[in-house]
Amino acid sequence: MKKIVGAIAALVLPCLAQGQKTWPPKPAQLAQAVREYRLENEDRIVRELSEFLALPNVATDAPNIQKNAAHLMEMLEARGIETHLLPITGRGPVVFGKLISAEAKRTVIFYAHYDGQPVDPAAWTDGAPFEPVLRSAAIEAGGKRIPFPTNGANTRGAYNDDWRIYARSSSDDKSPIVALLAALDALRAKGIPLAVNLKVILEGEEEAGSPNLQKTLELHKNLLGADLLITADGPVHQSGRPLVFFGNRGDIGIEVTVYGPVRALHSGHYGNWAPNPAMELSRLLASMKDEDGRVLIPGYYDDVTALGEAEKKALAEMPENDADLKRELGIAKPEGRGKKLVELIMEPSLNVRGLRSAYVGSQAQNVVPEKAEASLEARLVKGEDPKKKFEQIASFIEKQGFFVVDHEATLEERRAHARVAKVIYEGGYRASRTPMDLPVSKAVVEVVRGAAGRDTVIMPSTGGSVPMYIFEDLGLQWIGVPIVNYDNHQHSSDENLRLGHFWRGMEIYGAILAALNW
Amino acid sequence: MKKIVGAIAALVLPCLAQGQKTWPPKPAQLAQAVREYRLENEDRIVRELSEFLALPNVATDAPNIQKNAAHLMEMLEARGIETHLLPITGRGPVVFGKLISAEAKRTVIFYAHYDGQPVDPAAWTDGAPFEPVLRSAAIEAGGKRIPFPTNGANTRGAYNDDWRIYARSSSDDKSPIVALLAALDALRAKGIPLAVNLKVILEGEEEAGSPNLQKTLELHKNLLGADLLITADGPVHQSGRPLVFFGNRGDIGIEVTVYGPVRALHSGHYGNWAPNPAMELSRLLASMKDEDGRVLIPGYYDDVTALGEAEKKALAEMPENDADLKRELGIAKPEGRGKKLVELIMEPSLNVRGLRSAYVGSQAQNVVPEKAEASLEARLVKGEDPKKKFEQIASFIEKQGFFVVDHEATLEERRAHARVAKVIYEGGYRASRTPMDLPVSKAVVEVVRGAAGRDTVIMPSTGGSVPMYIFEDLGLQWIGVPIVNYDNHQHSSDENLRLGHFWRGMEIYGAILAALNW
Repeated sequence: MKKIVGAIAALVLPCLAQGQKTWPPKPAQLAQAVREYRLENEDRIVRELSEFLALPNVATDAPNIQKNAAHLMEMLEARGIETHLLPITGRGPVVFGKLISAEAKRTVIFYAHYDGQPVDPAAWTDGAPFEPVLRSAAIEAGGKRIPFPTNGANTRGAYNDDWRIYARSSSDDKSPIVALLAALDALRAKGIPLAVNLKVILEGEEEAGSPNLQKTLELHKNLLGADLLITADGPVHQSGRPLVFFGNRGDIGIEVTVYGPVRALHSGHYGNWAPNPAMELSRLLASMKDEDGRVLIPGYYDDVTALGEAEKKALAEMPENDADLKRELGIAKPEGRGKKLVELIMEPSLNVRGLRSAYVGSQAQNVVPEKAEASLEARLVKGEDPKKKFEQIASFIEKQGFFVVDHEATLEERRAHARVAKVIYEGGYRASRTPMDLPVSKAVVEVVRGAAGRDTVIMPSTGGSVPMYIFEDLGLQWIGVPIVNYDNHQHSSDENLRLGHFWRGMEIYGAILAALNW
Repeated sequence: MKKIVGAIAALVLPCLAQGQKTWPPKPAQLAQAVREYRLENEDRIVRELSEFLALPNVATDAPNIQKNAAHLMEMLEARGIETHLLPITGRGPVVFGKLISAEAKRTVIFYAHYDGQPVDPAAWTDGAPFEPVLRSAAIEAGGKRIPFPTNGANTRGAYNDDWRIYARSSSDDKSPIVALLAALDALRAKGIPLAVNLKVILEGEEEAGSPNLQKTLELHKNLLGADLLITADGPVHQSGRPLVFFGNRGDIGIEVTVYGPVRALHSGHYGNWAPNPAMELSRLLASMKDEDGRVLIPGYYDDVTALGEAEKKALAEMPENDADLKRELGIAKPEGRGKKLVELIMEPSLNVRGLRSAYVGSQAQNVVPEKAEASLEARLVKGEDPKKKFEQIASFIEKQGFFVVDHEATLEERRAHARVAKVIYEGGYRASRTPMDLPVSKAVVEVVRGAAGRDTVIMPSTGGSVPMYIFEDLGLQWIGVPIVNYDNHQHSSDENLRLGHFWRGMEIYGAILAALNW
């Protein structure tokens, strides 16, 4: 391990700030320069990645996660990046790094995480998630295990783009860190200066829910001055094309319990008389949305910040694979009155994620159940407040005739009210979205498109939820520039990285570092 | 055990057919005669019951359940009852008995079962469900364990009416058998002839669902000529008052599965687009009934055989404890637009007995579930056909826009139809009800009221379901004359028999045997 890190340190070259004819250089040229460097250094780059992947990195495994942080610190410092470990008791620290460029007027923070999901080695084809394996293709495409090419003079371009490295965090999320550092090495090797000051925030408990990130960053807020944060987490578009995204949805959870009689009653002796909570819950849920999936709760869409022209244009240009998805998923008619999936996930949602009342199937008993439960979830978009959303839903339940409580209903409450519902707010957080027509947004799109191709998918927001509001709260605009393949099995067994995506990621990050300017 | 059975055999006296001034005798006089006998023979009667209760009687425990049958045969033959064991392979036989009375023109079959629910000794206060225990009152009323009074000259009336015997089947359903035989002994001791020929059908697998009863009885149909069947199973009215009932409801089970996408989908990436099966199921269920519990399925009430005047009058006279039940069960407003519980259970019902889709509470996942299941159950009343009822419901589901299948839906079916529901008929059986204005019905009511009191509750039908159609199919009218206390913990731990009910049961059965005439 020492060997590689030391060798990379020796590569650090003085920045040749004014060595270019035009400044900043074209992203395509930068991508080409990074590619040239990469072709000569694939072995070195893959070895740095493999050494990193060999360190077990489950967030709760304190000794190992801290070894990862120490290793990262070496990797950063080898590049002359000023590095600080922002400690979290008993966990992996936030690894913070800073690299000032004399010419830069802007500062960009790069966010990634170095911890990975827990592993079940028995579920992995090769049985050892922390022993990186090279394969000739994805396992599901018949990829065979192959040896890593021998280090030597003849390794230029020895790695095929379709080859994959299998290991925990090979995609999620160690490889983007290595890609960034390799891009930095490439620029330096080619004498190309950085267009921006670079800071990095590398988190060690993202897969554990980032319980300490916000607190830790607030404690060290003075370090975080910047004009943009780029998150490297996540995969590219499912079409395989590069992706830039500007937001994600918020998310709140709500647990609803509708009460019947105080104990399950014999359905023969009490059926037709004792109110059935499963039926009352069904009626309540049915009242919440129409058959097209439109939420009927008054005001449900009122706080939505409308998409701008740039966002609408981006949506219209996004690749559509709804027909394929329908086939694959056995869906004859999606919700949303003909709107495309990518449009629909820009709207707030209300989802029944689970139902439970007494028993079904072979366990069914002839009873009027004592209660019926629904687990609801609302995805929020920009402009919506989580607590207000919850209150809107709770108030709707009340208007449907329920006496709403926030505790296990008492016998007296049940005696007094025809319908009683416990409605519990499970918490959640707001959406976060950077407007696409900001100069910085346009600049990032331009650089990524220049480096990675005009077919780069531009997405105003993903449908999922990541607590990026944490960065927004710190006053940072953020944009997502993921690089890894979509079919990477993240969070599961046989996580893998397609090398072609890894290489292209370096080129994208190199172009951002050397050409981003707004 | 032998001692008691032998002693009883010695009691058998010649029937004094014409020993009465008027024939048949008044039920109240007969009750008095049985009471006189009982007061002198409490120890003997309780010992016979205790010996019977000491035999473990779970239907699937073949050696023991067959011991119960052999013991029963001794008990019957000791009374000169011609007894046959109608065999069921590997189970307890149907114990059939016949006792002809020279003067009788009618034959009455007495039905009861000698098997009991499975036991969990650890859940019983006294730890041994097959070791009968005497207590001074119900456990929940602070009843203490007391010794059985010593056999001897001073035992007349030694047993208090409120004392209880704790043991499996003490109520359900061994004590009615012992009560019948003790009533027979009493009549003989007092020289009172039987007014009817008596047959008994004592089943050994009722608690296991009577899987072989119909088949076994059909095989021995020649034995079953009779004018009436009296079932002794079940408790009296919850008010503690005696009960005569004339019917029960049928019951069918239906399992409904509504399909979503072929696998649970990330609710962020697919919510608002992928149809949610939990929501579709809710909408379907909500369409089935109105807020008062009235079923909205066309024709749902069409086949109901209307209650006659006698039934309506009986209902109007039934004790009403709806207000108490509401308080006890925490129900503010029952279904049924103000009708009483006893009226509502005379109607067909449609009950959601269970719901399931993905997970709720701490297990909830942010998914669009792949399916949602409801377990439905319909109680049927006289006039309704189980299969037709199922088809009515399935056809309604179809009219609500579902493509209905009777198998796990295929991918092709899911691709082709916006809504797909698997609707499975779990089977069931029809209701059974003997008209209350038949001469036999009036005669039974008259005898029971005469023996047990004018406050005897007369119920056209119970709300529950017991497959009494089996006897209807054999051409037998049937009437329910239960005797045991309502709070007997049947099917549960600490099953018990209140002696006052047991004593009164003997008087009722004695009156039926000696006075029933129509």
